[in-house]
Amino acid sequence: MNYKISDTIVAISTPPGSGAIGVVRLSGDKAIEIADKIFFGKNLIKAKANQNFYGKIKSSEDQILDECMASIFRSPRSYTKEDVVEFACHGSDYILSSLLKLTLSLGARLAEPGEFTLRAYLNGQLDLAQSEAVADLIASKSEAQHKLAMNQLRGGVSNTISEMRNRLIEFASLIELENDFGEEDVEFANRDQLINQVNQMLVELKVLSKSFDLGNAIKDGIPVAIVGKPNAGKSTLLNALLKDDKAIVSPIAGTTRDVVEDTISINGKLYRFLDTAGLRETTDQIENIGILKAKEKIEKSSIVLFLSELRDDHLSIDKEFKDLHLAKDKKAIILLTKSDLFDHSCHAYDIEEAISTLNNRIPVLNISVEKNQNLDKLVELLDTSVNELSTGHNEVIISSARHYQSLENTIDALNKVLMGLSSSIPSDIIALDIRHALNSLGEISGEIQTDDLLDSIFSNFCIGK
Amino acid sequence: MNYKISDTIVAISTPPGSGAIGVVRLSGDKAIEIADKIFFGKNLIKAKANQNFYGKIKSSEDQILDECMASIFRSPRSYTKEDVVEFACHGSDYILSSLLKLTLSLGARLAEPGEFTLRAYLNGQLDLAQSEAVADLIASKSEAQHKLAMNQLRGGVSNTISEMRNRLIEFASLIELENDFGEEDVEFANRDQLINQVNQMLVELKVLSKSFDLGNAIKDGIPVAIVGKPNAGKSTLLNALLKDDKAIVSPIAGTTRDVVEDTISINGKLYRFLDTAGLRETTDQIENIGILKAKEKIEKSSIVLFLSELRDDHLSIDKEFKDLHLAKDKKAIILLTKSDLFDHSCHAYDIEEAISTLNNRIPVLNISVEKNQNLDKLVELLDTSVNELSTGHNEVIISSARHYQSLENTIDALNKVLMGLSSSIPSDIIALDIRHALNSLGEISGEIQTDDLLDSIFSNFCIGK
Repeated sequence: MNYKISDTIVAISTPPGSGAIGVVRLSGDKAIEIADKIFFGKNLIKAKANQNFYGKIKSSEDQILDECMASIFRSPRSYTKEDVVEFACHGSDYILSSLLKLTLSLGARLAEPGEFTLRAYLNGQLDLAQSEAVADLIASKSEAQHKLAMNQLRGGVSNTISEMRNRLIEFASLIELENDFGEEDVEFANRDQLINQVNQMLVELKVLSKSFDLGNAIKDGIPVAIVGKPNAGKSTLLNALLKDDKAIVSPIAGTTRDVVEDTISINGKLYRFLDTAGLRETTDQIENIGILKAKEKIEKSSIVLFLSELRDDHLSIDKEFKDLHLAKDKKAIILLTKSDLFDHSCHAYDIEEAISTLNNRIPVLNISVEKNQNLDKLVELLDTSVNELSTGHNEVIISSARHYQSLENTIDALNKVLMGLSSSIPSDIIALDIRHALNSLGEISGEIQTDDLLDSIFSNFCIGK
Repeated sequence: MNYKISDTIVAISTPPGSGAIGVVRLSGDKAIEIADKIFFGKNLIKAKANQNFYGKIKSSEDQILDECMASIFRSPRSYTKEDVVEFACHGSDYILSSLLKLTLSLGARLAEPGEFTLRAYLNGQLDLAQSEAVADLIASKSEAQHKLAMNQLRGGVSNTISEMRNRLIEFASLIELENDFGEEDVEFANRDQLINQVNQMLVELKVLSKSFDLGNAIKDGIPVAIVGKPNAGKSTLLNALLKDDKAIVSPIAGTTRDVVEDTISINGKLYRFLDTAGLRETTDQIENIGILKAKEKIEKSSIVLFLSELRDDHLSIDKEFKDLHLAKDKKAIILLTKSDLFDHSCHAYDIEEAISTLNNRIPVLNISVEKNQNLDKLVELLDTSVNELSTGHNEVIISSARHYQSLENTIDALNKVLMGLSSSIPSDIIALDIRHALNSLGEISGEIQTDDLLDSIFSNFCIGK
């Protein structure tokens, strides 16, 4: 990444391909000067900010490259806080790349991925967590992803981290004060009170750190393992959910074209269905090898859909399900499939009720993909499960692995602080651990930064943002 | 196509996919009213035209869909001459499609392909030939295509047609005047003068119509047939030209990704290389079947590259070339290949000179792809050939098959007028043919239009333009 903020940078900011409108964006000290040299119809140097001007872009005296609109933004009232010019041209690759070359020949430099946002960060427009949210926002494919990113962009994560950091700084100053008077063996702060403070912070940090499970699930798609014997109706269900999605998503072509296979947005939530081909049956016993294979997928999932044919008896279904040995906090739904092929009165009892009772009121649903029975209820149950995953988290949810790592490092450091306070470790050693905690926390919003860190963040952006 | 111009239309105007910026555009009476309902940060109804406003788009009371820039254009100072609002959002499919749905729920209608430009045409902003140029401009992939489209957009074709049409109208009024006084057997205009006028117009129309060969070649790529025996180095040359192109085109990734295979932009001109696998040799005689196969490609091409190994003697090369029986106006270049493998002093004479002399000073060039010898000269020769194709045409070049057909119809009608004037056909019959000519000419710029015509033109546009 190039950190020469004195350069004027340029990029095509709209997606590649032909379209009605294509935008080329310049940012930097010379943005307006360069734009003015090629734009005819308005003196951009004298032009008012935040206005649109119609004019011609000329590549030479008598060669008109395009008729377009130019918008001027003057420092500091722009995305980057620098002077910015945006040309809205006809969306032709030829025109946009020619315009780009034209600005390069006049002294602009091709922007690196995310460099506009990097400048917004370096110039104090956004902090680091907010900058990352910009990329998440652009990449978001579901309502839940979008909400997460928008919340982070609007300072949700940053404010929480900043508030914690202020408390930690206050705390640090108390300890450092003790250091200054170290010779005199003064204790400015009551140790028990300090321990309480750290404990309280640890509780909050752990809640935040734990929210990454959900945040990550929302961002990458809530992982749902579909488990069951091969003829339980697993792929039929998957196809039905996929088809359903195609109808639901949006009337706009191309909206979900580039999603990963088996990732589906239903009712504003992105699900990632994990295919488990595993559960094979030999002489009515589930093979251990099959279970082992499925275990991995189950481990990674937030929700498990366990499928079994409705015609099986409730005890064998229950045994199969229990053999999965699901962790206690794993959400599970038992689906009794092919309910259309089965005369419900044949079971002399309410099979759903029976299984549900055996399994601590777990949701049990009979479905028929063929007859479209209860598929709407399944979607409702998935929805409820996701909402249950969210409870216990306050508004702020961490969705970045980087933030998660920084939080874990902060927690580690604070645990050391706690140990130090509880034993007779000198306060200057404790102060060192506090500083570690402060640094780790500061990395999230970017108070603490390194070039490597910035590189790894902004290189994932698209060019032009 | 929907011609309800009272509707307010909306579309995503940037190409599909994630990007830094995505634009949603509204046009129509209610554009500003609808936009104002979802945009917070500025009262758009009272807002000044041609300005950018920063604000939030809310999908409900407490749901922020995006932070974006809104631009307002007020009728008639906009692309469509209607009220127009453009939202420049984060380029996320989710955000853009949600915004689209939001405007639809407030009474906007999804725009059909090209409907913004259709309105620009119906509202008198552009004529039909200029409207078509908008689509050509967006699709253009080479400097030559771009120049052609830009010239047409700026009225090049329209002005010429309009000028011709005025002359024809004047001419028609003379003939119609005769009709009004028909009983009295008056001749208001000297027949010989009239015949001269029509002849003059026919000459000009034919030049214009003939320019379609070049216009079409530029638009679709100048067709170049590569002819020669299989081991003459044909594919090696093609690959070299393709590779060359990749280096030349532009430093921007993706610029030429979606070109048709074997279509290459070199020095601002788009070439379409036609592979001829045909010319096989049996006992030193070129098979007739091979020639027949190659003939078709040669027929379609504007330029023929004939390849032969340099080591062959000039008489047999000359014979092979003559066996192609190229039409007189076909541009041809003879390439003597693998010149690096051959000691030039072995020919006791200048072989290029010898062949060139035998063929009316046709360009002959020895090349070696391996050693990169004379490839630059070949590109120069191609360039020259295209420029020679252009000579004889004035500035205005027809590139649309529709315009070509209308011109041919005009020519047909005027030929009938000519026949009428030369014989004793009554002037009311002649007037009918003149009206046919006028109608055909009027179709080009859209003075004469039908819904079918508009449908066929605008359905080829991208949505959002």
